[in-house]
Amino acid sequence: MEELKFLVAPETGKGLREGHLYDLAIVGGGPAGLTAGVYAARKKLDTLLVSRDIGGQTLLTSDIENYMGYHYISGKELAAKFEEQVKAYPIDIAVGEEVVSLGKGGEDFVLTTATRKEIRARAVIVATGKRSRPLNVPGERELVGRGVSYCAVCDAPLFSGKDVAVIGAGNSGATAVVDLIKIADRVYVVDIMPGWRADPVLVERIAAAGAKVKAYFGHEVVRIEGRDRVEGIVIRPRGGGEEVRLPVQGVFIEIGLIPNSDLAKGFLALNEAGEIVVDCRCRTSVPGVFAAGDVTDVPEKQVIIAAGEGAKAALSAYAYLIGQRR
Amino acid sequence: MEELKFLVAPETGKGLREGHLYDLAIVGGGPAGLTAGVYAARKKLDTLLVSRDIGGQTLLTSDIENYMGYHYISGKELAAKFEEQVKAYPIDIAVGEEVVSLGKGGEDFVLTTATRKEIRARAVIVATGKRSRPLNVPGERELVGRGVSYCAVCDAPLFSGKDVAVIGAGNSGATAVVDLIKIADRVYVVDIMPGWRADPVLVERIAAAGAKVKAYFGHEVVRIEGRDRVEGIVIRPRGGGEEVRLPVQGVFIEIGLIPNSDLAKGFLALNEAGEIVVDCRCRTSVPGVFAAGDVTDVPEKQVIIAAGEGAKAALSAYAYLIGQRR
Repeated sequence: MEELKFLVAPETGKGLREGHLYDLAIVGGGPAGLTAGVYAARKKLDTLLVSRDIGGQTLLTSDIENYMGYHYISGKELAAKFEEQVKAYPIDIAVGEEVVSLGKGGEDFVLTTATRKEIRARAVIVATGKRSRPLNVPGERELVGRGVSYCAVCDAPLFSGKDVAVIGAGNSGATAVVDLIKIADRVYVVDIMPGWRADPVLVERIAAAGAKVKAYFGHEVVRIEGRDRVEGIVIRPRGGGEEVRLPVQGVFIEIGLIPNSDLAKGFLALNEAGEIVVDCRCRTSVPGVFAAGDVTDVPEKQVIIAAGEGAKAALSAYAYLIGQRR
Repeated sequence: MEELKFLVAPETGKGLREGHLYDLAIVGGGPAGLTAGVYAARKKLDTLLVSRDIGGQTLLTSDIENYMGYHYISGKELAAKFEEQVKAYPIDIAVGEEVVSLGKGGEDFVLTTATRKEIRARAVIVATGKRSRPLNVPGERELVGRGVSYCAVCDAPLFSGKDVAVIGAGNSGATAVVDLIKIADRVYVVDIMPGWRADPVLVERIAAAGAKVKAYFGHEVVRIEGRDRVEGIVIRPRGGGEEVRLPVQGVFIEIGLIPNSDLAKGFLALNEAGEIVVDCRCRTSVPGVFAAGDVTDVPEKQVIIAAGEGAKAALSAYAYLIGQRR
């Protein structure tokens, strides 16, 4: 995967204050975290937002047509608007920092970053989102960044006039196909399931591209081939059958997402998918710790839903902190 | 209360088709209903959106600063953007119709409007929002529209240079005060509780207005006085004490909201406040009926939360309908 380009360089943000006890630490800078930041700031909470990037998965999204208020907006534009909005408030923002652990230190919560900075807060919102799931086939790891990509938005332009394969026929796979139709010469789609699992509007757009798109449903990927760069993929029918080699120069892997919940393991209750379990008010299994957006077990992964959950989490954290003061 | 000014005249919308069995009927045209409309349309559901107005409570809101994507936008502008977005999709929209009952008719759901039109649908989303709660004091009903208002956004401009009272010191009361500071000569605030229950940013703005605002906390309203128009209100300390008369020409009542759940009474489970009880996926007590936004028991009343819930409700309705087809 390409490194994310930060919309904000770490040095331009108001940084984190080590040794300071914050009211609230928000971990994650996607739609949920940024919305939580705005709501926390409006409640005058002494807040730190700490994140690897600003924008989260929206940075990896090209066309957003279902965020209410904008009939069409790119993920980067929307992230920039969210960022501008949260920066209008006096909260500390530390970008370029990854929180690797979360636990209790006396009465407070203690978070540590990959660079060994320590954050103390009276309440925490985890809004760390999800990341792409790898295929785990031979050739995949070796050829990442050399034809293997997990981000069609980032990398599609590199494949002008070439042949590519998209692995996965859900909404993110279908979105990748729609992006690639405009750029690549031929687009193969491979999925172990027997058909599309994407929104009908996307499937219709793909159908309109005709023979440019060829689908191998009910197929699985055996390996990705190539020495210095991707030269092809080998697939076969699910449950066995003859292997087929597709001569492609690019492979876009869109087979789902993994929650970024490592920091919470052993501290918060997670479900089998590794998502943080929350109630309808974004409360986790530990009082004072809230979670919002794609890292949680909220079923649908949508910007507008994540933003709504971020607002809920901040208001729940505020209610918790007010209760503590009594 | 002033009549709502429809952003869309009933005759311009695509109307409802009586006798047609819709996949989904969405009742309500506020942020939750409109978002549900966009999500349902993107899932290609045969959808009717039926509502008294387009915009719901956002039409009664002046400055929205916490809808992500817009650092500042008026309620009317945001409603117009939502409206434009939902109208880009081929769904039926019937504005100016109030649904007064909801029940089962065989396998389908049957809804009837105040004008006795019948709507049939395989699934329903109730997103009818809330309305203002009356004080229930002498003089209130008689003087509505003649100095008594439930909508500072609509009516504040009528009180230029006059003295007014705002009843209620929560967020909506505080917002009304902020609106009125710019217009009225003197603003009294009356609340039975001992202080503000509003966001600190609002309270700070009010504090900055100095002596222009005078608060009577711990007071209740006894009556509203006036013959043809409001001439004053009489208040007294909660629990008894000497009455105080405030010579005002306007009274803005901001003491909370009542859910518009009458259509669901006896059919869906409601809580003590009359809100429709939903689970985290917007499912009501009746399979196939979903609810979203302020009419539900979701704790916080915010545009971004209502929009997120509307998206969830539509996706849950889609999953329900797909399941029914099997």
